[in-house]
Amino acid sequence: MENKQTSMDRINQFRDDRNWRQFHNEKDLALSISIEAAELLEIFQWKTSEEALADFEHLKEEIADVLIYSYMLADNLKLDIDTIIQEKLIKNNRKYPVDQSRGLK
Amino acid sequence: MENKQTSMDRINQFRDDRNWRQFHNEKDLALSISIEAAELLEIFQWKTSEEALADFEHLKEEIADVLIYSYMLADNLKLDIDTIIQEKLIKNNRKYPVDQSRGLK
Amino acid sequence: MENKQTSMDRINQFRDDRNWRQFHNEKDLALSISIEAAELLEIFQWKTSEEALADFEHLKEEIADVLIYSYMLADNLKLDIDTIIQEKLIKNNRKYPVDQSRGLK
Amino acid sequence: MENKQTSMDRINQFRDDRNWRQFHNEKDLALSISIEAAELLEIFQWKTSEEALADFEHLKEEIADVLIYSYMLADNLKLDIDTIIQEKLIKNNRKYPVDQSRGLK
Repeated sequence: MENKQTSMDRINQFRDDRNWRQFHNEKDLALSISIEAAELLEIFQWKTSEEALADFEHLKEEIADVLIYSYMLADNLKLDIDTIIQEKLIKNNRKYPVDQSRGLK
Repeated sequence: MENKQTSMDRINQFRDDRNWRQFHNEKDLALSISIEAAELLEIFQWKTSEEALADFEHLKEEIADVLIYSYMLADNLKLDIDTIIQEKLIKNNRKYPVDQSRGLK
Repeated sequence: MENKQTSMDRINQFRDDRNWRQFHNEKDLALSISIEAAELLEIFQWKTSEEALADFEHLKEEIADVLIYSYMLADNLKLDIDTIIQEKLIKNNRKYPVDQSRGLK
Repeated sequence: MENKQTSMDRINQFRDDRNWRQFHNEKDLALSISIEAAELLEIFQWKTSEEALADFEHLKEEIADVLIYSYMLADNLKLDIDTIIQEKLIKNNRKYPVDQSRGLK
Protein backbone atom coordinates (compact mmCIF):
# COMPACT_ATOMS: atom_id res chain seq x y z
CA MET A 1 0.00 0.00 0.00
CA GLU A 2 1.14 3.54 -0.84
CA ASN A 3 1.19 4.74 2.73
CA LYS A 4 3.45 1.94 3.90
CA GLN A 5 6.29 3.26 1.77
CA THR A 6 9.05 4.92 3.73
CA SER A 7 10.77 8.10 2.52
CA MET A 8 13.74 5.93 1.54
CA ASP A 9 11.47 3.69 -0.55
CA ARG A 10 10.00 6.70 -2.34
CA ILE A 11 13.44 8.24 -3.02
CA ASN A 12 14.81 4.99 -4.38
CA GLN A 13 11.76 4.45 -6.55
CA PHE A 14 12.19 7.96 -7.95
CA ARG A 15 15.77 7.32 -9.04
CA ASP A 16 15.20 3.75 -10.17
CA ASP A 17 12.21 4.78 -12.32
CA ARG A 18 14.60 7.11 -14.18
CA ASN A 19 17.57 4.74 -14.17
CA TRP A 20 19.60 7.47 -12.49
CA ARG A 21 21.58 5.30 -10.08
CA GLN A 22 24.26 4.98 -12.77
CA PHE A 23 25.11 8.68 -12.25
CA HIS A 24 24.86 8.58 -8.46
CA ASN A 25 28.43 7.88 -7.49
CA GLU A 26 29.13 8.81 -3.88
CA LYS A 27 31.45 11.74 -4.64
CA ASP A 28 28.84 13.51 -6.77
CA LEU A 29 26.15 12.79 -4.18
CA ALA A 30 28.33 14.42 -1.49
CA LEU A 31 28.86 17.36 -3.85
CA SER A 32 25.09 17.56 -4.43
CA ILE A 33 24.44 17.73 -0.68
CA SER A 34 26.80 20.74 -0.44
CA ILE A 35 25.11 22.42 -3.40
CA GLU A 36 21.63 21.97 -1.95
CA ALA A 37 22.82 23.09 1.50
CA ALA A 38 24.05 26.32 -0.11
CA GLU A 39 20.70 26.83 -1.86
CA LEU A 40 19.08 26.55 1.55
CA LEU A 41 21.63 28.99 2.99
CA GLU A 42 20.89 31.47 0.21
CA ILE A 43 17.37 31.93 1.61
CA PHE A 44 19.03 33.48 4.68
CA GLN A 45 21.53 35.69 2.78
CA TRP A 46 21.35 39.35 3.98
CA LYS A 47 18.42 38.36 6.19
CA THR A 48 17.53 37.56 9.78
CA SER A 49 15.98 34.17 10.54
CA GLU A 50 12.60 35.90 10.85
CA GLU A 51 12.88 37.57 7.45
CA ALA A 52 13.90 34.29 5.81
CA LEU A 53 10.88 32.44 7.23
CA ALA A 54 8.65 34.51 4.93
CA ASP A 55 10.01 32.31 2.12
CA PHE A 56 8.47 29.24 3.73
CA GLU A 57 7.67 27.12 0.65
CA HIS A 58 11.20 27.60 -0.63
CA LEU A 59 12.63 26.62 2.77
CA LYS A 60 10.63 23.39 2.77
CA GLU A 61 11.88 22.48 -0.69
CA GLU A 62 15.53 23.15 0.02
CA ILE A 63 15.51 21.23 3.31
CA ALA A 64 13.85 18.37 1.43
CA ASP A 65 16.57 18.48 -1.26
CA VAL A 66 19.33 18.23 1.34
CA LEU A 67 17.51 15.28 2.92
CA ILE A 68 16.86 13.51 -0.38
CA TYR A 69 20.51 13.55 -1.44
CA SER A 70 21.62 12.56 2.08
CA TYR A 71 19.22 9.60 2.00
CA MET A 72 20.53 8.60 -1.44
CA LEU A 73 24.13 8.68 -0.25
CA ALA A 74 23.21 6.67 2.85
CA ASP A 75 21.40 4.13 0.68
CA ASN A 76 24.39 3.81 -1.67
CA LEU A 77 26.44 2.90 1.40
CA LYS A 78 23.73 0.51 2.74
CA LEU A 79 23.35 2.67 5.83
CA ASP A 80 20.17 2.91 7.86
CA ILE A 81 19.29 6.56 8.53
CA ASP A 82 17.91 6.02 12.03
CA THR A 83 20.87 3.89 13.06
CA ILE A 84 23.54 6.37 11.98
CA ILE A 85 21.66 9.23 13.65
CA GLN A 86 21.35 7.26 16.88
CA GLU A 87 25.04 6.28 16.82
CA LYS A 88 26.10 9.89 16.25
CA LEU A 89 23.91 11.12 19.11
CA ILE A 90 25.53 8.55 21.42
CA LYS A 91 28.95 9.84 20.37
CA ASN A 92 27.89 13.49 20.80
CA ASN A 93 26.52 12.59 24.21
CA ARG A 94 29.95 11.40 25.30
CA LYS A 95 31.56 14.56 23.88
CA TYR A 96 29.03 16.94 25.44
CA PRO A 97 27.88 15.37 28.75
CA VAL A 98 24.58 16.91 29.87
CA ASP A 99 25.89 18.14 33.22
CA GLN A 100 28.84 19.97 31.62
CA SER A 101 27.05 21.29 28.52
CA ARG A 102 23.73 22.55 29.83
CA GLY A 103 23.00 25.98 28.41
CA LEU A 104 26.60 26.49 27.34
CA LYS A 105 27.09 27.67 23.81
CA MET B 1 9.95 2.53 25.60
CA GLU B 2 13.35 3.48 24.20
CA ASN B 3 12.85 1.77 20.85
CA LYS B 4 9.60 3.61 20.13
CA GLN B 5 11.49 6.91 19.93
CA THR B 6 11.88 8.29 16.43
CA SER B 7 15.10 9.93 15.24
CA MET B 8 13.38 13.29 15.62
CA ASP B 9 12.49 12.46 19.24
CA ARG B 10 16.08 11.52 20.00
CA ILE B 11 17.49 14.66 18.36
CA ASN B 12 15.07 16.93 20.22
CA GLN B 13 15.79 15.21 23.49
CA PHE B 14 19.51 15.73 22.91
CA ARG B 15 19.15 19.46 22.45
CA ASP B 16 16.51 19.92 25.14
CA ASP B 17 18.60 18.03 27.71
CA ARG B 18 21.32 20.65 27.13
CA ASN B 19 18.96 23.63 26.83
CA TRP B 20 20.50 24.35 23.41
CA ARG B 21 17.35 25.37 21.58
CA GLN B 22 18.03 28.97 22.63
CA PHE B 23 21.04 28.99 20.27
CA HIS B 24 19.30 27.16 17.44
CA ASN B 25 17.96 30.02 15.37
CA GLU B 26 17.13 28.97 11.83
CA LYS B 27 19.90 30.97 10.14
CA ASP B 28 22.62 29.33 12.21
CA LEU B 29 21.05 25.90 11.67
CA ALA B 30 21.15 26.48 7.89
CA LEU B 31 24.76 27.58 8.25
CA SER B 32 25.51 24.42 10.27
CA ILE B 33 24.05 22.20 7.54
CA SER B 34 26.44 23.81 5.02
CA ILE B 35 29.39 23.36 7.37
CA GLU B 36 28.61 19.68 7.96
CA ALA B 37 28.00 19.11 4.24
CA ALA B 38 31.49 20.47 3.59
CA GLU B 39 32.99 18.17 6.22
CA LEU B 40 31.35 15.29 4.37
CA LEU B 41 32.70 16.63 1.07
CA GLU B 42 36.20 16.83 2.53
CA ILE B 43 36.28 13.02 2.79
CA PHE B 44 36.16 12.97 -1.04
CA GLN B 45 38.79 15.73 -1.60
CA TRP B 46 41.54 14.56 -4.03
CA LYS B 47 39.91 11.11 -4.04
CA THR B 48 37.68 8.91 -6.12
CA SER B 49 34.44 7.64 -4.58
CA GLU B 50 36.12 4.27 -4.08
CA GLU B 51 39.09 5.75 -2.23
CA ALA B 52 36.80 7.80 0.02
CA LEU B 53 34.77 4.75 1.02
CA ALA B 54 37.81 3.48 2.92
CA ASP B 55 36.97 6.17 5.49
CA PHE B 56 33.65 4.52 6.22
CA GLU B 57 33.18 5.41 9.90
CA HIS B 58 33.90 9.04 9.14
CA LEU B 59 31.39 8.99 6.25
CA LYS B 60 28.67 7.62 8.54
CA GLU B 61 29.29 10.36 11.08
CA GLU B 62 29.29 13.24 8.62
CA ILE B 63 26.11 12.05 6.86
CA ALA B 64 24.52 11.77 10.32
CA ASP B 65 25.60 15.33 11.18
CA VAL B 66 24.00 16.71 8.00
CA LEU B 67 20.81 14.82 8.84
CA ILE B 68 20.75 15.87 12.50
CA TYR B 69 20.97 19.60 11.68
CA SER B 70 18.43 19.20 8.87
CA TYR B 71 16.02 17.49 11.25
CA MET B 72 16.54 20.28 13.81
CA LEU B 73 15.80 22.97 11.25
CA ALA B 74 12.71 21.09 10.07
CA ASP B 75 11.54 20.74 13.67
CA ASN B 76 12.06 24.46 14.34
CA LEU B 77 9.73 25.10 11.40
CA LYS B 78 7.20 22.43 12.58
CA LEU B 79 7.82 20.47 9.38
CA ASP B 80 7.38 16.72 9.10
CA ILE B 81 10.41 15.16 7.39
CA ASP B 82 8.49 12.50 5.48
CA THR B 83 5.89 14.98 4.27
CA ILE B 84 8.37 17.50 2.86
CA ILE B 85 10.34 14.71 1.15
CA GLN B 86 7.17 13.32 -0.39
CA GLU B 87 6.02 16.77 -1.56
CA LYS B 88 9.42 17.48 -3.14
CA LEU B 89 9.43 14.14 -4.94
CA ILE B 90 5.98 14.93 -6.38
CA LYS B 91 7.33 18.27 -7.62
CA ASN B 92 10.48 16.64 -9.04
CA ASN B 93 8.29 14.07 -10.73
CA ARG B 94 6.48 16.83 -12.62
CA LYS B 95 9.80 18.46 -13.55
CA TYR B 96 11.42 15.21 -14.68
CA PRO B 97 8.68 12.97 -16.10
CA VAL B 98 9.80 9.34 -16.19
CA ASP B 99 9.31 8.91 -19.93
CA GLN B 100 11.42 11.97 -20.75
CA SER B 101 14.10 11.54 -18.09
CA ARG B 102 14.92 7.85 -18.19
CA GLY B 103 18.66 7.34 -18.23
CA LEU B 104 19.33 10.94 -19.20
CA LYS B 105 21.89 12.72 -17.15
CA MET C 1 43.32 56.87 -14.56
CA GLU C 2 40.97 53.92 -15.00
CA ASN C 3 43.70 51.38 -15.62
CA LYS C 4 45.53 52.24 -12.42
CA GLN C 5 42.58 50.96 -10.37
CA THR C 6 43.19 47.69 -8.57
CA SER C 7 40.54 44.96 -8.40
CA MET C 8 39.93 45.98 -4.79
CA ASP C 9 39.34 49.59 -5.88
CA ARG C 10 36.84 48.48 -8.51
CA ILE C 11 34.98 46.19 -6.08
CA ASN C 12 34.76 48.90 -3.43
CA GLN C 13 33.59 51.44 -5.95
CA PHE C 14 30.89 49.03 -7.09
CA ARG C 15 29.47 48.63 -3.60
CA ASP C 16 29.93 52.24 -2.57
CA ASP C 17 28.17 53.50 -5.72
CA ARG C 18 25.14 51.48 -4.57
CA ASN C 19 25.51 52.26 -0.88
CA TRP C 20 25.59 48.51 -0.21
CA ARG C 21 28.23 48.47 2.50
CA GLN C 22 25.41 48.84 5.06
CA PHE C 23 24.27 45.28 4.24
CA HIS C 24 27.77 43.82 4.05
CA ASN C 25 28.27 42.58 7.58
CA GLU C 26 31.02 40.00 7.84
CA LYS C 27 28.77 37.04 8.65
CA ASP C 28 26.64 37.54 5.54
CA LEU C 29 29.77 38.04 3.42
CA ALA C 30 31.15 34.72 4.69
CA LEU C 31 27.78 33.14 3.91
CA SER C 32 27.90 34.67 0.41
CA ILE C 33 31.33 33.17 -0.24
CA SER C 34 29.94 29.70 0.59
CA ILE C 35 26.94 30.27 -1.66
CA GLU C 36 29.09 31.36 -4.61
CA ALA C 37 31.53 28.50 -4.00
CA ALA C 38 28.59 26.09 -4.29
CA GLU C 39 27.44 27.72 -7.54
CA LEU C 40 30.95 27.11 -8.87
CA LEU C 41 30.81 23.53 -7.61
CA GLU C 42 27.48 22.99 -9.37
CA ILE C 43 29.22 23.37 -12.74
CA PHE C 44 31.09 20.14 -11.90
CA GLN C 45 28.04 18.19 -10.60
CA TRP C 46 27.73 14.78 -12.33
CA LYS C 47 30.68 15.74 -14.56
CA THR C 48 34.38 15.20 -14.98
CA SER C 49 36.67 18.24 -14.94
CA GLU C 50 36.92 18.01 -18.71
CA GLU C 51 33.15 18.00 -19.20
CA ALA C 52 32.75 20.99 -16.88
CA LEU C 53 35.32 23.05 -18.79
CA ALA C 54 32.85 23.22 -21.69
CA ASP C 55 30.93 25.69 -19.55
CA PHE C 56 33.87 28.10 -19.60
CA GLU C 57 32.06 31.47 -19.41
CA HIS C 58 30.05 30.25 -16.46
CA LEU C 59 33.23 29.03 -14.72
CA LYS C 60 34.86 32.45 -15.15
CA GLU C 61 31.86 34.19 -13.63
CA GLU C 62 31.54 31.91 -10.63
CA ILE C 63 35.27 32.07 -9.80
CA ALA C 64 34.99 35.87 -10.07
CA ASP C 65 32.01 35.87 -7.67
CA VAL C 66 33.94 33.87 -5.06
CA LEU C 67 36.85 36.30 -5.42
CA ILE C 68 34.67 39.43 -5.26
CA TYR C 69 33.01 38.43 -1.99
CA SER C 70 36.35 37.29 -0.55
CA TYR C 71 37.90 40.67 -1.42
CA MET C 72 34.92 42.47 0.18
CA LEU C 73 35.29 40.48 3.40
CA ALA C 74 39.05 41.13 3.44
CA ASP C 75 38.40 44.84 2.89
CA ASN C 76 35.85 44.96 5.71
CA LEU C 77 38.58 43.59 7.97
CA LYS C 78 41.23 46.00 6.58
CA LEU C 79 43.25 43.05 5.31
CA ASP C 80 45.60 43.22 2.36
CA ILE C 81 44.96 40.29 -0.01
CA ASP C 82 48.59 39.74 -1.01
CA THR C 83 49.79 39.88 2.58
CA ILE C 84 47.34 37.30 3.92
CA ILE C 85 48.09 34.97 0.98
CA GLN C 86 51.83 35.31 1.56
CA GLU C 87 51.45 34.71 5.32
CA LYS C 88 49.33 31.60 4.72
CA LEU C 89 51.84 30.20 2.22
CA ILE C 90 54.61 30.66 4.80
CA LYS C 91 52.51 28.76 7.33
CA ASN C 92 51.69 26.01 4.79
CA ASN C 93 55.37 25.79 3.95
CA ARG C 94 56.16 24.95 7.58
CA LYS C 95 53.33 22.39 7.66
CA TYR C 96 54.32 20.75 4.37
CA PRO C 97 58.12 21.03 4.00
CA VAL C 98 59.16 20.57 0.37
CA ASP C 99 61.45 17.62 1.06
CA GLN C 100 58.75 15.68 2.91
CA SER C 101 55.79 16.64 0.71
CA ARG C 102 57.11 16.35 -2.82
CA GLY C 103 54.64 14.42 -4.96
CA LEU C 104 52.78 13.09 -1.95
CA LYS C 105 49.06 13.47 -2.00
CA MET D 1 63.68 39.93 -6.55
CA GLU D 2 61.38 38.34 -3.96
CA ASN D 3 59.10 41.35 -3.69
CA LYS D 4 58.39 41.44 -7.40
CA GLN D 5 56.57 38.11 -7.14
CA THR D 6 52.81 38.34 -7.42
CA SER D 7 50.51 36.27 -5.22
CA MET D 8 49.87 34.03 -8.22
CA ASP D 9 53.62 33.48 -8.66
CA ARG D 10 53.99 32.53 -5.00
CA ILE D 11 51.02 30.14 -5.11
CA ASN D 12 52.26 28.43 -8.25
CA GLN D 13 55.77 28.12 -6.83
CA PHE D 14 54.32 26.52 -3.71
CA ARG D 15 52.52 23.82 -5.66
CA ASP D 16 55.27 23.30 -8.22
CA ASP D 17 57.93 22.91 -5.49
CA ARG D 18 55.85 19.98 -4.18
CA ASN D 19 54.88 18.61 -7.58
CA TRP D 20 51.22 18.90 -6.53
CA ARG D 21 49.79 20.10 -9.84
CA GLN D 22 49.21 16.44 -10.75
CA PHE D 23 46.49 16.26 -8.07
CA HIS D 24 44.98 19.66 -8.87
CA ASN D 25 42.26 18.76 -11.33
CA GLU D 26 39.63 21.46 -11.64
CA LYS D 27 36.82 19.48 -10.01
CA ASP D 28 38.81 18.87 -6.84
CA LEU D 29 39.94 22.50 -6.77
CA ALA D 30 36.30 23.64 -6.95
CA LEU D 31 35.51 21.17 -4.17
CA SER D 32 38.42 22.58 -2.13
CA ILE D 33 37.09 26.13 -2.49
CA SER D 34 33.73 24.98 -1.04
CA ILE D 35 35.47 23.20 1.82
CA GLU D 36 37.59 26.24 2.71
CA ALA D 37 34.56 28.55 2.39
CA ALA D 38 32.78 26.37 4.95
CA GLU D 39 35.77 26.51 7.32
CA LEU D 40 35.53 30.30 7.07
CA LEU D 41 31.78 30.11 7.69
CA GLU D 42 32.35 27.96 10.77
CA ILE D 43 34.04 30.91 12.49
CA PHE D 44 30.63 32.65 12.39
CA GLN D 45 28.58 29.62 13.56
CA TRP D 46 26.30 30.56 16.53
CA LYS D 47 27.94 34.01 16.55
CA THR D 48 27.34 37.58 15.49
CA SER D 49 29.85 39.20 13.13
CA GLU D 50 31.31 41.07 16.09
CA GLU D 51 31.81 37.92 18.16
CA ALA D 52 33.47 36.16 15.22
CA LEU D 53 35.96 39.00 14.70
CA ALA D 54 37.59 38.03 17.99
CA ASP D 55 39.01 35.06 16.10
CA PHE D 56 40.94 37.38 13.79
CA GLU D 57 44.01 35.24 13.01
CA HIS D 58 41.76 32.33 12.09
CA LEU D 59 39.65 34.60 9.83
CA LYS D 60 42.77 35.78 7.98
CA GLU D 61 43.89 32.20 7.38
CA GLU D 62 40.54 30.94 6.13
CA ILE D 63 40.02 33.90 3.76
CA ALA D 64 43.55 33.25 2.45
CA ASP D 65 42.73 29.56 1.90
CA VAL D 66 39.64 30.43 -0.16
CA LEU D 67 41.74 32.85 -2.21
CA ILE D 68 44.64 30.43 -2.70
CA TYR D 69 42.42 27.66 -4.12
CA SER D 70 40.50 30.19 -6.24
CA TYR D 71 43.77 31.48 -7.68
CA MET D 72 44.91 27.90 -8.40
CA LEU D 73 41.68 27.11 -10.25
CA ALA D 74 41.96 30.37 -12.23
CA ASP D 75 45.56 29.52 -13.10
CA ASN D 76 44.62 26.01 -14.25
CA LEU D 77 42.17 27.67 -16.65
CA LYS D 78 44.74 30.33 -17.76
CA LEU D 79 42.49 33.05 -16.39
CA ASP D 80 43.77 36.40 -15.17
CA ILE D 81 42.26 37.23 -11.76
CA ASP D 82 41.94 40.98 -12.35
CA THR D 83 40.37 40.47 -15.77
CA ILE D 84 37.65 38.07 -14.62
CA ILE D 85 36.82 40.31 -11.65
CA GLN D 86 36.57 43.36 -13.92
CA GLU D 87 34.41 41.48 -16.43
CA LYS D 88 32.07 40.28 -13.68
CA LEU D 89 31.71 43.77 -12.24
CA ILE D 90 30.76 45.07 -15.70
CA LYS D 91 28.11 42.36 -15.92
CA ASN D 92 26.85 43.08 -12.38
CA ASN D 93 26.73 46.77 -13.26
CA ARG D 94 24.32 46.03 -16.08
CA LYS D 95 22.22 43.82 -13.80
CA TYR D 96 22.14 46.32 -10.94
CA PRO D 97 22.24 49.84 -12.45
CA VAL D 98 23.37 52.39 -9.88
CA ASP D 99 20.25 54.54 -10.13
CA GLN D 100 17.93 51.57 -9.57
CA SER D 101 19.99 49.75 -6.94
CA ARG D 102 21.19 52.49 -4.62
CA GLY D 103 20.62 51.47 -1.03
CA LEU D 104 18.25 48.69 -1.98
CA LYS D 105 18.89 45.35 -0.42
